[in-house]
Order: sequence, then C-alpha cells, then structure tokens
Amino acid sequence: MTNTQVTLVQIDNYGPWTVTPEPRREADLQTLQSRLYADISQFVGNRNGYTFFTRFDNMIAVTNGLSFEDHALLQESVGNRYPVSLSLGVATGTTPAQALSDATERIQDAGSAQDKDRRECLEGRTIDDGHRTPDDVQIAHFDVINATGNYTDELNAFDSFIEIEQGYAELMRHMRRAHDSLSFFVGGDNIIVTCPDLGYAEYEEAIAHVEEAVDVRLQVGVGRGEHAHDAGFAAKHALETCRADGTRVELEWDH
Amino acid sequence: MTNTQVTLVQIDNYGPWTVTPEPRREADLQTLQSRLYADISQFVGNRNGYTFFTRFDNMIAVTNGLSFEDHALLQESVGNRYPVSLSLGVATGTTPAQALSDATERIQDAGSAQDKDRRECLEGRTIDDGHRTPDDVQIAHFDVINATGNYTDELNAFDSFIEIEQGYAELMRHMRRAHDSLSFFVGGDNIIVTCPDLGYAEYEEAIAHVEEAVDVRLQVGVGRGEHAHDAGFAAKHALETCRADGTRVELEWDH
Amino acid sequence: MTNTQVTLVQIDNYGPWTVTPEPRREADLQTLQSRLYADISQFVGNRNGYTFFTRFDNMIAVTNGLSFEDHALLQESVGNRYPVSLSLGVATGTTPAQALSDATERIQDAGSAQDKDRRECLEGRTIDDGHRTPDDVQIAHFDVINATGNYTDELNAFDSFIEIEQGYAELMRHMRRAHDSLSFFVGGDNIIVTCPDLGYAEYEEAIAHVEEAVDVRLQVGVGRGEHAHDAGFAAKHALETCRADGTRVELEWDH
Amino acid sequence: MTNTQVTLVQIDNYGPWTVTPEPRREADLQTLQSRLYADISQFVGNRNGYTFFTRFDNMIAVTNGLSFEDHALLQESVGNRYPVSLSLGVATGTTPAQALSDATERIQDAGSAQDKDRRECLEGRTIDDGHRTPDDVQIAHFDVINATGNYTDELNAFDSFIEIEQGYAELMRHMRRAHDSLSFFVGGDNIIVTCPDLGYAEYEEAIAHVEEAVDVRLQVGVGRGEHAHDAGFAAKHALETCRADGTRVELEWDH
Repeated sequence: MTNTQVTLVQIDNYGPWTVTPEPRREADLQTLQSRLYADISQFVGNRNGYTFFTRFDNMIAVTNGLSFEDHALLQESVGNRYPVSLSLGVATGTTPAQALSDATERIQDAGSAQDKDRRECLEGRTIDDGHRTPDDVQIAHFDVINATGNYTDELNAFDSFIEIEQGYAELMRHMRRAHDSLSFFVGGDNIIVTCPDLGYAEYEEAIAHVEEAVDVRLQVGVGRGEHAHDAGFAAKHALETCRADGTRVELEWDH
Repeated sequence: MTNTQVTLVQIDNYGPWTVTPEPRREADLQTLQSRLYADISQFVGNRNGYTFFTRFDNMIAVTNGLSFEDHALLQESVGNRYPVSLSLGVATGTTPAQALSDATERIQDAGSAQDKDRRECLEGRTIDDGHRTPDDVQIAHFDVINATGNYTDELNAFDSFIEIEQGYAELMRHMRRAHDSLSFFVGGDNIIVTCPDLGYAEYEEAIAHVEEAVDVRLQVGVGRGEHAHDAGFAAKHALETCRADGTRVELEWDH
Repeated sequence: MTNTQVTLVQIDNYGPWTVTPEPRREADLQTLQSRLYADISQFVGNRNGYTFFTRFDNMIAVTNGLSFEDHALLQESVGNRYPVSLSLGVATGTTPAQALSDATERIQDAGSAQDKDRRECLEGRTIDDGHRTPDDVQIAHFDVINATGNYTDELNAFDSFIEIEQGYAELMRHMRRAHDSLSFFVGGDNIIVTCPDLGYAEYEEAIAHVEEAVDVRLQVGVGRGEHAHDAGFAAKHALETCRADGTRVELEWDH
Repeated sequence: MTNTQVTLVQIDNYGPWTVTPEPRREADLQTLQSRLYADISQFVGNRNGYTFFTRFDNMIAVTNGLSFEDHALLQESVGNRYPVSLSLGVATGTTPAQALSDATERIQDAGSAQDKDRRECLEGRTIDDGHRTPDDVQIAHFDVINATGNYTDELNAFDSFIEIEQGYAELMRHMRRAHDSLSFFVGGDNIIVTCPDLGYAEYEEAIAHVEEAVDVRLQVGVGRGEHAHDAGFAAKHALETCRADGTRVELEWDH
C-alpha cells in the first residue's frame, strides 16, 4: 500500500504582488517563477523527492524522505534569496489526492492565498523514518507514442503542443477522478503521475480512455520505491522497455 | 494590421539526451529546463520580447525588435553555458499562427528534432527596422474570474489546477482554430495570447465558447504595441480595468 | 585615446540587510550574491560589456555601448526579481580610474551605501552613439605562466591560490597607481584589466614589477575595441599568441 | 580539537575548454562560473557546509556532515546540468590546511587538472557519523572596522577594494603560515577563515600583524560547531558583539 507524502508549496500573496504598485514586466515574472521552481526542484530532488511546477504560484511536491526540518530550511533559504516567501503544507495519505487535500486544508486554515498577513506558514507532519517502506511511492511516467515522428517533425510547433495538451488535460482529469492520482506535465511529451497502488488494468483503462476521448496514444512505465526518485527512476526504465518493445504498459516490479 | 515576429526555439536532440547513457535524474532535467527557459526569457524580455515555456523542449517567443544577430548571440551564449544547444527558426506573418508555421518549417527543413547531426541551426529572417509599426503586435491577457476566491481558497490545489487547465486546453484550441492565435499558460490563472488584429466580438465569442464548453469564466485585457512588452503591458493594464470594473473584455486602445 | 564608460553597481543598504533581523545563512548570501552577479554579467555581456564581481556588494562594469535606458532596465529587472535593489552610477573618462571616480561620486552624492532612504538611484551619463570610436576601450588579459604545471598540479589548492592572490594584489595596486587602470581577478589564474592607452613599455614594466615584488610570472595579451567584448576578445587572442610563442606581452593591433 | 572535513572541487580540464575551439565570451564564462559556484554553495549549504569560490575553477568547501554519497550526488547533478564536470577530493584533519593538502593529493594522484582523460573522479573519505563532535569545526569571521564609513563612502570604489584586497592577501598568507588556517574573501569587507583550535592570542596576533603590514584594521568573531554553519553562525553573532561593543576579538564560547 502506498503512503505518499505530499507538500503544497504556495507563494504568499503572489497575485497582488505581481501588480503592485503596477504590473511588473512579464519576462521578469516568468524568470522569477521558473528559477524559484528550479531551486525548489533541486532542494527536494537532491533529497530524492519530485517537485512539479503546476501553476508556479502553487507547486506540488512528493516529499517522502524529507523531514519537517528540511521543509523549514527550504522556506528559510527561499525567504533569504527571493522577493517573495513560501507557505508550505505537508500531509501523507494512502492516496496522493487525499494527502494533497489534507495539505491544502492546512494552508487554507492558516489564511487565504491573498491574505497579506499569512506569511511563511509551515503546517502539517511528515512520515517518521520508522514507518517508511519500499512501496510508499508509486510513480507512472507516460509519454506520447512517437511524438517526434507524428507531431514535432510534422505539425507546426503549436499544433503539436495542442495535441499534447489535450492529452494531458484529459489524463489529469481522469486519473484524478477514477484513480485518486495527480498528473503533471513535465515538458516534451512527458507526464508524470503520482499514484496509489494501481496495476495493469487501471493503466490500460486510462490509456484507452485518453485515446478514445482525444485521440492521443500514450504509453506508460510504472515504478515503486521508498521515495519519488526511486519510484520514478524505475518508471523511466520501464518506459524505456515500452519504447524498445512496443508495449503500452510496463510495471517495473513485474519483471 | 499585425506583423508578429515569432521564433521557435528547439533544444537539439533533447529527448535522446535525457536517456543517454541511461535516464537522468528527473529533478535535474526539470532544473535544467526551467533555468534554460528563464535565461531565454531574460534575454528576449530585456529586448522587449516575450518567451513562453510551452513544452520546454520547444519554446515559442514573440521577438519583434530582436535582430538576426540577437538570435545568433542567444544561441552562442546558451551553447557556452549549457550541456545542450538550441536551434532557432524565425519568421513573420500577419497572423502568429502563420508566422510560427513558417518558423517551424525552417527548422524542420534543416532536420529532425532528434537528428544528431542537426545542431545549432539558425534559419529565417527578421523584420527590418524600417518596416516596424506601433501595431505590429497584439497581446491578450486572460485570467479566470475570482480564481482565488472560487478555486484556490476552496478546492484542493490540484482540483483548482484541473479547472484552470481545462480552461486553458479549450481556449488554446479555440483561439488557434477560430482566430489563428497562439495561447500560453504563464502561471497562476493567467493565459497570454498572441493574436492577429482581433476586436471585441472575437474576444467575447472566445470567452463565451470556453464558458459553455468547460464552465470556466474568463476575462481579458488586450493591448497593441511595437513589440510584445508594449502590447502586453497595455493588456495588463486593460485587465486591471476588468478586475476593477467587472467587465469581461477591455481593449486598451479603446479608452 | 580611450574613452571608457564605467558603471558602479552598488547593492543598496546590503550590509545591514545581511544581519537583519539576525545574521542570514552564509550559503544563502553567497548564492544570492553570485547569482545576482551572473545576471548582471549576462545583461551587460550580451550588450558587449564586461562586469566584474569585485566585492559583490560593489561591482564594476565597462559599459561602452549601453545606454542610460539599458541601465534603467537592468535596475528595474533586478528590483523585480531579488530581495535587494541596485544603485547605479555611470561616467566616462580618458582613464578608467577617472571614470570610476566620477561614477562613485555620483552615487556617494546621493547618499551612503548604508542609508536606508537611498534606493535605486541612477546617476550619470553615457557616451552618445555619435561619439563612440573603435579605440574607446583597451583591455589587457593577464595570466600566470604555466600556473597548472607550476602550481595547480604541484602545490595544494590553497597554496596555489595564495600565489595567484599575491600576484593579483600587487598587480591591481600597481596598475592603479602607475597606470590609472582597474584590474579584476576573473577566476583561475586570469586577471582582466581595463586600461587607458598603454603600450609595450607599460605592460613590460608592470610584469617586471610583479615578478620582482612577489615572484609571480605573468604574461599579457592586449586588445582594443569599440566595447569591452571586442577589446577583450582581441586580448584573449593575443594571450593565445603568448601561450603559443612564449612571449610575455602581445598587443593585438601590432600584428 | 577540531576535525575539519575539507572538499576540493575542481572543474575538469576547464582552462583548455574555455579556449576551445576558440576563446569563449568572457561574460558567458563569468556567468557559468558564478552560477556553478552558487549551485554548489546551495547543495553544500543546505547540508550545513560552507563553500568558497576561491579561484572558481578550484573551489574549497568545509563539508562536515556531508557523506560520500552526498558528494557523488553533487557530482552527478552538476554533470547533468552543466557543460563541464567536477572532480572531488575529500579529506579530514586536525588542521584545515592538512585536510586540504590530503584532499588535493587525492585529486592530483588521479591526473592533471588539464588531463582530458581525468573526469569526474571522486576520491577520499568522510568522517563517520559516530566520530563527529560539537567542536569539529572552528570558523572565524573577520571584517574591516567601519569599512563603509572609512572606505566605501569616502574612496572611489576601486580604491576601497584595493584596501580590502591588501588586507585579505596579507591575512590569507599569514593565517596559512602561522596557523594552518584557510582564509576566504566572501564579499563586501568579509573574510571567513576555517581554523584549527585557536584562541584569543592567535587572533589578536593575526589582527596586529595585518594592521602593521598593510594598515588595514580588522575585527573578528569566532565560533565552534559540529559543522560549518553552526560554527559560522556563532562567529557571525560574535562579530555582531564586536560591532556593538567595539571589541576586536570575540570568541563565542567564551560568553
């Protein structure tokens, strides 16, 4: 059974800041957001977690292996180096969707995302080391079959992107509703999903659903691990098997 | 009439690189991609262009005001500082969609995105300074009405994001097909669209379409300018008027 | 005759900020400083200027080719993305030392570096395009003869560094006093100097002085140009000639 | 007794790379170097170590608390994101100078800094957790007395810098020879020194020596800790006491 630790990272009062005293240059906002994300991704990533940029003002991370103190240090370090600050909510659950709901609630209880007085709150709890297991995290790594040949080298760059986005929009909604999973576009034609304990049937169903709904053909490799990196690395290897063998679903632990 | 200069930025042979000799750590790829994007956004942005992260391996920029030499310098500078290199295609047109098609073709003619021998190609042409006008670029800045109150502070962080993504997926497809426009999610609940010469009717139609299709309520400010920053800055101010007055479409030049 | 445009970049009220409300983590300060420097180096550098990190809280740049508007944009962009802000003083002169003195005075007149009310001042003037010439900037690029063989691979890493620092401390002082030039350590065993119109005799004298004073053997390539990049690039090529031919001073325009 | 763990970080074959196939733009090299340093500083720093930029192509870090696996991960992550790679040598000793000598030797044994075939070597050993003590690291934080009033606001920016550099060059040499300590300029008028077990007498002697030799007046706060951050944070607080009370040497553990 999975036990995913999920952290919601929210920039404090970001919307109002971007237009105060008047709208800031868009290129600067884009630079700020993507560098802040990159820094969080490194901090979490070199402790074996995964961070997703999501909306940039709200980022979601799988943080199994990170302690409460790690979260506090991340918050302090960002506060020292950026003109904005972070609030963090962390929770665990048997499904990623439930864990994120709990993490969100912790932050919402502390105040609105646009409350000037809610600043650098850090709420929730992490999994004790003694309770961690090698199956805590399940990661599925999807991509679009032959995206370069079918899309990138054939369509114009935006029409390729439309196809991929339609596939993502459909998959994210379906995995959330049908499987309590959280799906994130990570660039190229790649979507990484943090899942509860799912098997062949669920992944095949999801792939079939997306193909039927928006005519985008996906394949997926799935891995398990003590933390996101372990699970995700196994998923990447499984996806390489899909690419090599032409299979659609590969579960790494089934080899 | 608009005359948008569009640049397609493509990382050379990126997909294969990410899995050679074996899959690289996801957090490092995410960091690399978002920092590369940030750097391009700064370079283009401090010459008054806009860059969108799009798929990260393929980025799209509105580059009115940037010369061919500027493009060459960007390519050289990235080549000096990253483990990957860029190919650039640039083209202009009366619609952004047409300009991007031409820019894409230039790069595709030089070779596949996954061709090991296609490296640092730089193709196309820019607008001569003498032909630039104050109406060359039209930028529309959309956001979701009361997203913080309706979504961020109410739903869990992923369900908010699903709503915004459904709105984006629908708007991007519609603006492309109906209006030859290119739409980009830029974080939070914001979507920036580079458009040909559109007016009230088209924006009202687009907003109504998205609301009907996926029940997401958008508002939009629109600006014109000699380059993306001018047009986009006017659009931001127009959007502030929507927020203050409760209107749904504001054209900055109509005040 | 040279006409160097020099910009002094000063972080506003930085010292007090680093210890308020209590001392900030050193690693965060180091990260902040070096990334801020990197950003300024890119902005100035892709307009063909050179920026030197100097003390980090005070940086010095050779900015021939950058307009006053460019300076204002740099200031705005940093203000949008960092928790600290910049004051800039810019001046020109027939010697770099005189130009820097004038630039410094402009900022000092506006207030102390630790005055809480002096924020984002931008003072001085740049060279009009019509007055720029291909000999405005002279750059000398020094390095230590066979530093890798004599020091890096032989001494421990700190003792190598001591040798290089002693050479730098002596050269910087001498070039300032004897030749109104500004010398900057730029990493490795490299020192870049912005100079007035000097020739063989002065460079040979400087090299002999350093060798006698601290027993560090230097070689130098020198270039001229309309801006720092042109001059510096020529200097690098001249230094390659030193390395290839075993000469101690190469003036690029003398070939 | 101190037991400092020192890591030498060396960019592989960097000198030749900077001029192959021809000299690279200086601004790009500066950007690359300072961002690489910033990343290492964050990685080491959020594990409570200190990294010093030193020569940039050779950086020195105090890494008590970092495991061998941490070093391997840093090396992998940099290799994934930069066009250059790192070799790392790590060693421990009762004096920092001895530890660095050993760390240097490990790397030198593996090949020259400019050997094309020496790539990503990782040599040495770290302190076992069971052997770590709260006195392993001693950090001294020096600054120049009233540097802003006496120099920054009075002299031109370069002459201020000359004063600080002369102080640094003298202190670094003296602390190395007399006290087996490694001194690093960290920006502004600050010098951080990693020391063996020194007391009042040694610091007073060092300050007197520098004042006599180059007429630069220093003060110093000193701290001890299990790792660099603990020790350095205590040193910063002690230095605040110097500033407040006008004392020249404050040992944090003596209060």
